Amino acid sequence: MPARLLTELSAPAITAALGPDSVLVLPTGAIEQHGPHLPVATDLITAQSMAELAVQQFGDELDLWLLPPLAYTKSNEHAWSAGTFWLSASTLTAVLADVARSVAKTPARRLAFLNGHGGNSALLQVAARDIRLETGLRTFVLHPALPADHGGESAAGELGMGIHGGLDETSLMLHLRPELVDMSQADRWVPEHLDAYRHVRFGGSVSFGWSSDDFGPSGVIGDARGATAELGEERAEAMVAQLGEALAEVARFDPAAPR
Amino acid sequence: MPARLLTELSAPAITAALGPDSVLVLPTGAIEQHGPHLPVATDLITAQSMAELAVQQFGDELDLWLLPPLAYTKSNEHAWSAGTFWLSASTLTAVLADVARSVAKTPARRLAFLNGHGGNSALLQVAARDIRLETGLRTFVLHPALPADHGGESAAGELGMGIHGGLDETSLMLHLRPELVDMSQADRWVPEHLDAYRHVRFGGSVSFGWSSDDFGPSGVIGDARGATAELGEERAEAMVAQLGEALAEVARFDPAAPR
Amino acid sequence: MPARLLTELSAPAITAALGPDSVLVLPTGAIEQHGPHLPVATDLITAQSMAELAVQQFGDELDLWLLPPLAYTKSNEHAWSAGTFWLSASTLTAVLADVARSVAKTPARRLAFLNGHGGNSALLQVAARDIRLETGLRTFVLHPALPADHGGESAAGELGMGIHGGLDETSLMLHLRPELVDMSQADRWVPEHLDAYRHVRFGGSVSFGWSSDDFGPSGVIGDARGATAELGEERAEAMVAQLGEALAEVARFDPAAPR
Amino acid sequence: MPARLLTELSAPAITAALGPDSVLVLPTGAIEQHGPHLPVATDLITAQSMAELAVQQFGDELDLWLLPPLAYTKSNEHAWSAGTFWLSASTLTAVLADVARSVAKTPARRLAFLNGHGGNSALLQVAARDIRLETGLRTFVLHPALPADHGGESAAGELGMGIHGGLDETSLMLHLRPELVDMSQADRWVPEHLDAYRHVRFGGSVSFGWSSDDFGPSGVIGDARGATAELGEERAEAMVAQLGEALAEVARFDPAAPR
Amino acid sequence: MPARLLTELSAPAITAALGPDSVLVLPTGAIEQHGPHLPVATDLITAQSMAELAVQQFGDELDLWLLPPLAYTKSNEHAWSAGTFWLSASTLTAVLADVARSVAKTPARRLAFLNGHGGNSALLQVAARDIRLETGLRTFVLHPALPADHGGESAAGELGMGIHGGLDETSLMLHLRPELVDMSQADRWVPEHLDAYRHVRFGGSVSFGWSSDDFGPSGVIGDARGATAELGEERAEAMVAQLGEALAEVARFDPAAPR
Amino acid sequence: MPARLLTELSAPAITAALGPDSVLVLPTGAIEQHGPHLPVATDLITAQSMAELAVQQFGDELDLWLLPPLAYTKSNEHAWSAGTFWLSASTLTAVLADVARSVAKTPARRLAFLNGHGGNSALLQVAARDIRLETGLRTFVLHPALPADHGGESAAGELGMGIHGGLDETSLMLHLRPELVDMSQADRWVPEHLDAYRHVRFGGSVSFGWSSDDFGPSGVIGDARGATAELGEERAEAMVAQLGEALAEVARFDPAAPR
Repeated sequence: MPARLLTELSAPAITAALGPDSVLVLPTGAIEQHGPHLPVATDLITAQSMAELAVQQFGDELDLWLLPPLAYTKSNEHAWSAGTFWLSASTLTAVLADVARSVAKTPARRLAFLNGHGGNSALLQVAARDIRLETGLRTFVLHPALPADHGGESAAGELGMGIHGGLDETSLMLHLRPELVDMSQADRWVPEHLDAYRHVRFGGSVSFGWSSDDFGPSGVIGDARGATAELGEERAEAMVAQLGEALAEVARFDPAAPR
Repeated sequence: MPARLLTELSAPAITAALGPDSVLVLPTGAIEQHGPHLPVATDLITAQSMAELAVQQFGDELDLWLLPPLAYTKSNEHAWSAGTFWLSASTLTAVLADVARSVAKTPARRLAFLNGHGGNSALLQVAARDIRLETGLRTFVLHPALPADHGGESAAGELGMGIHGGLDETSLMLHLRPELVDMSQADRWVPEHLDAYRHVRFGGSVSFGWSSDDFGPSGVIGDARGATAELGEERAEAMVAQLGEALAEVARFDPAAPR
Repeated sequence: MPARLLTELSAPAITAALGPDSVLVLPTGAIEQHGPHLPVATDLITAQSMAELAVQQFGDELDLWLLPPLAYTKSNEHAWSAGTFWLSASTLTAVLADVARSVAKTPARRLAFLNGHGGNSALLQVAARDIRLETGLRTFVLHPALPADHGGESAAGELGMGIHGGLDETSLMLHLRPELVDMSQADRWVPEHLDAYRHVRFGGSVSFGWSSDDFGPSGVIGDARGATAELGEERAEAMVAQLGEALAEVARFDPAAPR
Repeated sequence: MPARLLTELSAPAITAALGPDSVLVLPTGAIEQHGPHLPVATDLITAQSMAELAVQQFGDELDLWLLPPLAYTKSNEHAWSAGTFWLSASTLTAVLADVARSVAKTPARRLAFLNGHGGNSALLQVAARDIRLETGLRTFVLHPALPADHGGESAAGELGMGIHGGLDETSLMLHLRPELVDMSQADRWVPEHLDAYRHVRFGGSVSFGWSSDDFGPSGVIGDARGATAELGEERAEAMVAQLGEALAEVARFDPAAPR
Repeated sequence: MPARLLTELSAPAITAALGPDSVLVLPTGAIEQHGPHLPVATDLITAQSMAELAVQQFGDELDLWLLPPLAYTKSNEHAWSAGTFWLSASTLTAVLADVARSVAKTPARRLAFLNGHGGNSALLQVAARDIRLETGLRTFVLHPALPADHGGESAAGELGMGIHGGLDETSLMLHLRPELVDMSQADRWVPEHLDAYRHVRFGGSVSFGWSSDDFGPSGVIGDARGATAELGEERAEAMVAQLGEALAEVARFDPAAPR
Repeated sequence: MPARLLTELSAPAITAALGPDSVLVLPTGAIEQHGPHLPVATDLITAQSMAELAVQQFGDELDLWLLPPLAYTKSNEHAWSAGTFWLSASTLTAVLADVARSVAKTPARRLAFLNGHGGNSALLQVAARDIRLETGLRTFVLHPALPADHGGESAAGELGMGIHGGLDETSLMLHLRPELVDMSQADRWVPEHLDAYRHVRFGGSVSFGWSSDDFGPSGVIGDARGATAELGEERAEAMVAQLGEALAEVARFDPAAPR
């Protein structure tokens, strides 16, 4: 059982346990096609695992509390594929707002979205501001693994485009849930022609609206062939360490100048 | 790990595994105050556990597949209490519609909501019809334990009003997750004066809009004092058996007359 | 002219006439296909007639006031047929909320939906709670005739499935508006094969999403052949008597324990 | 009983009775304060009566069919007063769109709103266009009595401002439902200072957002003192005659040039 | 640069400049097909030019301030044509409400829509009331040129139907932006057969839902052939003069009786 | 007059001028407080000027067409200040979707948002994907000046936080519209204490919900004191050059691999 799962407390215990500097951590996963070698729950498993590990390791120190994850989020870039289960932008926005209003009813004043799916990032930023303004909660958006199209890194062989089902993500799953990975189906699907663009590219200065089948029929963007559990473990440890650092800032962040 | 959890398959495997008579089972829990003796996740734990047990036991035979649960649902009758996390009627309706549209993209044509929270029942019935008409999916609403205000039974000492945090629910939790139950806080909160009404009562011919603090400050309606793990186990077994029967009908239900 | 029709008063007279225990009665009918023998306004006529009779008989004693009915409600299970005029779930929810906000502006604090159409029941229950929480009004949902799929009774020859255009409803219309009934078109349309299901059935433990043309082309579910005005009169009298009992409880219902 | 009330037919009879040139007439009333001398249902009674009379007189000739009225519409200019029951702009728009979609399911292709409340006029014009474009129905907005702020006339003593509870409306009610009028409460409430404005005035070149309590506490704008049943009868006859002329055009209107 | 363009001030300067009787003028144009001889921005250019001229001429005296125009508004009667860019009724309503809420945050208490597109008139009237009631702002709807279907005039040769791309509008554009007018494409498109209707006509007692291609393929309704810059100049001067008169009333309008 | 402003063409000319590789450029500005030294239209002026310059310089070569800008967008981080005029997330999303549907009606298949306001960036990314999926248009989001909280640069003295009313933005305005800048009010408002955070910072790995008054009463974040028209001209030229490069990619971008 995950440590410090808030919802395992009774209502009076929740009120007693939380204070204004408590951080409520809401993992946002996704259920979406991840190629033939990874389960559709990959982003949910990743977000939830990283959140659980971070809260387990840093929760007592930083007063972190875990909330049940949102499994279904905004995955319409994979809507073309059966096996993708997704919410529209307006639905997900409404879910986040409703959950945040409930958070605002508790003594806690800090809400952190721990997001495992790149397709949610922009929407979460919009929601973080709107929730901040409506409820007064301090809101934060964290990514255990910043995807390459949001400023993160990607292996050289992937030309910086390992954003969906590639080396890192597959390695992470080999570490976390190896029985769900079928390496016999892993392959390299890198849209190499995109490397010719300097601006219109994943993580470039011009973002663009895309569907994952724009780049080919596999729905994968990256190269999963070299994935190993060892690399996954290494990545997981680095992610949790970085989450710890980030959450330490989240727990004490104050935008107003000290007086 | 739960058996036959659909989202542990890859997208191509999902398309291969499902056929028109496959039944997708979506547990709908709730995160809401359950008095001082039970965790706020009680309905989520119950719905998810019963769904997992039923799919484990009957899944191969009936071609059942589990979906990740909806943890946050419609609990506004408990909104007065911190620790309740809830979605508005319009938000939950949108979530159900979006998930159902994603289900309709798979080969499966049967979607069963397995609902652990009485406050969702009416909304799920509305959604079941609307989804049926929009997507063509056959939709079903099951309750592992029909609450007393929806036609289920309740112990005599509860005057038929054991609908929230009472004998059965507490026993079930003592069986499923005893470490989360604090029996030292269990008590009897039965609004006995309501027994004078014949029509306006839980499960009566006149339904009424209520908030759980209408009946007293505890937020519990029932008598948890006699709860035991044994009774909980007994109830769980009966529930799973009944779910099995019900799901067998769900799997073959055809409204059209045979020709 | 119906007795105690609130809207026949002037605005100042309404404020003078109503107090916190006044009950405002809003009939919710439906305009939907009812087979070849009954008018599409059957549910509207029924709900309005029963409401008028109940308010006439019990209004002075119980401080009941009639509101103009909602003719158009949620009938999408009959949307396949021309002659059905219906509102979506979100539209009807908005109508109920808006009317309730207007009620909350008066001195009255009790609002009773008197519902003549089974397809509205679940939505009205959702609305009753949400209105209760938003406005503080005490809300109630009454059915003059509880349909068989909501716990009511149905004749043996209908196998408990006389839910739409069957014996009781046709008899009631023969009593109330005989000139609108064409008994030459009355017939028996009972989906007998459904009697094999124990759980998935009208009023069973598993509710299911259906459209009335799922069961056959007539759109009727029941057996209208034996309908008579005498039976209708008997049913009407029983309904009004039961409404009187129920409204007496509505008028004095208090969820809080007496001190 | 009103003549040619469509909803008194069965569904198959509706399909048989209607053709593309049938005109469905939907009266839109209002429930809103009308001063101390008139019932809040004044606009509903007026719209419904005029619609019934017009359909009775011209229905056979012009293939007109009456629909049950919308009692609750957009009256927020009177929302300050208890006794006003109103729908928001978005709710009423949704109701009109839903009803129109149901009309579009029948063979009829012409839908006429017969509007008894000035506060609905602008919204009905928006809806008429949007319904036309969504459903292809030909849509029309008729006013039995064009109010002074929409180009109609008003008695000299009212300075052209008899728009709410004044001479004509009170007379009409004395003719239609005299028992609901309290002439002892009738008075003159004319905001004479508005006569100084040439542009910003009821029916002027500049329309303005107003609430009926902007002009004084009575909520009436006009002079009801001289109202008589005779004048009301005269007005009613003129209205019905004019509706007959207008509906004759509605029934044959074709925007495309004849070829 | 236009005079008194509010948004050229800094935020503190805006607060200092505005008082409760300041009038904020929001031009509402349209981007929609206007036949082969006029640019799609015709209504935007007209509304913006008239607003700028009126504010320049009368702004200092009447404390008028210009806001950036809404270019995209409700033009769905021209949605059949590429080159029409339009907002739905609900979108435009939301835009107006949001802008008005922002206006309500300033010291100003008067908001005037200066509307250049007939298709917006009804919606603006609805919005004007709703904004008045939500924010307390005094709201006004002005038309520089009242179109013939809203009570304005039209040349005899147009049979009173010069409502879109006809003599006046073309002349106005020849005066304002001659380089954007192609008189070689100007023609006469008057649906003469409509002149036979007395009630169902542009500006008649019965308004009707229409699309501009209902009347013929050109999308123009009027006769542009005789248009000249001279006539346009004359019309422009008359419009600005009339706007000045109207805005003088807007600036001092008070619905309450003087005490 | 700006070059290649699409809306100065007639509807038939638009259809003739556009082809599938035409790029429609929609500037998105903002009207929001920018401190005491800059006008509230700063972002609108910037976005529109850069768009006009880029289209003028590269339009013929790249088949670019300018659309009228959206002046009012999402500025709720400045909603605390009078002088900010903003649309909610749902309103702006609806506006973008409606305009995009109108674009999709033309022969053009590429739509580029040229965004001058950092507060729009995340929402535009969400919209770009959703529009891509709904309409099939290729969508792009460009920033003439990538703000420091979105990966852009900021002067050393601003500690990388010159995101609102700082050196670059003020210089740009001194170049574009010097008469609107009041350098006597320019000052340094840099929340230096934020420099202690490595993750939770503008452009950091953790984004956070903020309101511009969180950091102090001025609403400015940056140091405007050193701003000069020369620096502004330099920045403008660099921006236009970079936009030219980016738009060249936008005009030929194809996600599918060449065959």
